[in-house]
Amino acid sequence: MKKAVILFNLGGPDKIENVEPFLFNLFNDPAILNLPTILRYPLAKLISNRRAPVAKKIYKELGGSSPILKLTMAQSKALETKLNQTEIDSEYKCFIVMRCWNPRANDVIKDVQSFNPEEIILMPLYPQYSAATSGSSIKEWRDVCKKNNYHVKTNTICCYPTDQNFINAHTKEIIKKIKDLKNFKLIFSAHGLPEKNIKKGDPYQWQVEQSVKKIVENLNIENLDWILSYQSRVGPLKWIGPSTEDIIVENSKLAKHIVLVPIAFVSEHSETLVELDIEYKEIADANGCKNYTRVPALGTNEDFIKAMSELIIKKNEYKFSENLYPPKIQCPSNFKKCPCLNYE
Amino acid sequence: MKKAVILFNLGGPDKIENVEPFLFNLFNDPAILNLPTILRYPLAKLISNRRAPVAKKIYKELGGSSPILKLTMAQSKALETKLNQTEIDSEYKCFIVMRCWNPRANDVIKDVQSFNPEEIILMPLYPQYSAATSGSSIKEWRDVCKKNNYHVKTNTICCYPTDQNFINAHTKEIIKKIKDLKNFKLIFSAHGLPEKNIKKGDPYQWQVEQSVKKIVENLNIENLDWILSYQSRVGPLKWIGPSTEDIIVENSKLAKHIVLVPIAFVSEHSETLVELDIEYKEIADANGCKNYTRVPALGTNEDFIKAMSELIIKKNEYKFSENLYPPKIQCPSNFKKCPCLNYE
Repeated sequence: MKKAVILFNLGGPDKIENVEPFLFNLFNDPAILNLPTILRYPLAKLISNRRAPVAKKIYKELGGSSPILKLTMAQSKALETKLNQTEIDSEYKCFIVMRCWNPRANDVIKDVQSFNPEEIILMPLYPQYSAATSGSSIKEWRDVCKKNNYHVKTNTICCYPTDQNFINAHTKEIIKKIKDLKNFKLIFSAHGLPEKNIKKGDPYQWQVEQSVKKIVENLNIENLDWILSYQSRVGPLKWIGPSTEDIIVENSKLAKHIVLVPIAFVSEHSETLVELDIEYKEIADANGCKNYTRVPALGTNEDFIKAMSELIIKKNEYKFSENLYPPKIQCPSNFKKCPCLNYE
Repeated sequence: MKKAVILFNLGGPDKIENVEPFLFNLFNDPAILNLPTILRYPLAKLISNRRAPVAKKIYKELGGSSPILKLTMAQSKALETKLNQTEIDSEYKCFIVMRCWNPRANDVIKDVQSFNPEEIILMPLYPQYSAATSGSSIKEWRDVCKKNNYHVKTNTICCYPTDQNFINAHTKEIIKKIKDLKNFKLIFSAHGLPEKNIKKGDPYQWQVEQSVKKIVENLNIENLDWILSYQSRVGPLKWIGPSTEDIIVENSKLAKHIVLVPIAFVSEHSETLVELDIEYKEIADANGCKNYTRVPALGTNEDFIKAMSELIIKKNEYKFSENLYPPKIQCPSNFKKCPCLNYE
């Protein structure tokens, strides 16, 4: 039986000239700028134009492009191999769909149609669900299928913030870095988002908290000094906090060894390689920090690939509704943007 | 010699049906929504429509309309009397111009033209300068004069945050309320504004700090427990802090007698009568506050009327440039929206 796995991520510009159109795609998404199209389109043009110069500087630090596609291809290949090794009577093929840059859903659907699977599994590379990330990608995929009149049984692994293999992956990466450290502060840093999104019922922050709680339990270290904070705020909106920057300043002044764990990104990209490794490190240095360690993003970590593989293969153990397979987690009812509280 | 004094304030809806058009005028101001007109107009329509229901509830608490025009008329009359009594060889006439509701600049200019003064003095009823308040009103007045081809020598009292009479007015109102109190927290509460405005060089927050600093010095009370905070945040933007609400919660829990001083409003309106007196009081009660006192807005306080009168009559003592008369205060150079750092 042929099965297609669609891996969703945000994507990133492949060259400097594409930074502005990439930003435009980001802000023209109704999940990001919730305005009528006639307003959203020109506003997205304006914002992407204004932000492009700073964003270009960031991508120049990365050699002129985002590494996210290359890294996602490695994850995709590792997952495809694992799936086909584990479930030998199925033929799995993984496809990457980026929300804001290539490959886009509109093009990838043709490859999926050529493969002609009997089942499609949607697998966001966002462990924690947000309407702005997983939600937007899932919606785009559905819209593109409708537009192309393409109807195949489709199931969605909508989130996996507390999946045990995913938690193990993080735990092991953290232990590698902290095992000989003393007087350190373990800072779990997630991409922030505007407070208004949470107020409207986005479960992202709650799910990030569940991930961190379970990793801390799994680490099982006495008197572990840890905190969860949020990075990457841009623009004039009020974002959720505390901010990673503030936490770094505070702990640098206390002469703590700072250990940063990217908790909502599964591959390296500008937010880890530039923001955490360069910009925040400069802030730490300026505030007296002597020791600064960053735990890598999961990438092709064996437990993470196993996590995704088992979520897909054993998804019937987690069946929530006709199409949704969230692994043993139930968002509180106020998070009404959670797909499990919203399914049709 | 005939002199016209133009008193600027924001205005407020005179009946419930006018709440939405009032909000539209507020958000369609480029000083509030800094976007090109083709974007600002529809966005202002959208925001005013969305916010109208909550705003209507607030004005219903006030009996269906804002008291601001009536109270400003009392100030205007008191000031006009004071000016004409003090400088008997001039004929002063005060005119009220509201930025977001009637009377509007476009109409008032006709009355000013009929009066036919030799000099016009622009006098914002905002002691602390912000581009969003005084700046916007001054600009509108200039634009309307240009449109009407009306050219009369015009001088501007752009701000007066540390004027001694203004400080005395506040000091006396505060002393009336606190003279017999024990274990109280004096909370100076100013209308907040988005953090991005300050970053772009708006001197408002700095000027509010100067006002409060000077009032505290003038009060001259040993171990006075005071703080400055900001109220009225709405919308998704990040505003300056700390928030008055948070400070009230914190001090209610500490069983402090809460004393609120509106520091950037010179007359009562929805932010004092509803927000401070009803909404924040409920929050205080819910957090264990037993004693809650609100110092009145200055209104027609004798020292405040004297402040404005002397600022106008003795303005040559404060002359800064051809047209600007800020009373003995100089904003630091990073506040480039300050008119003294910007004059043509």
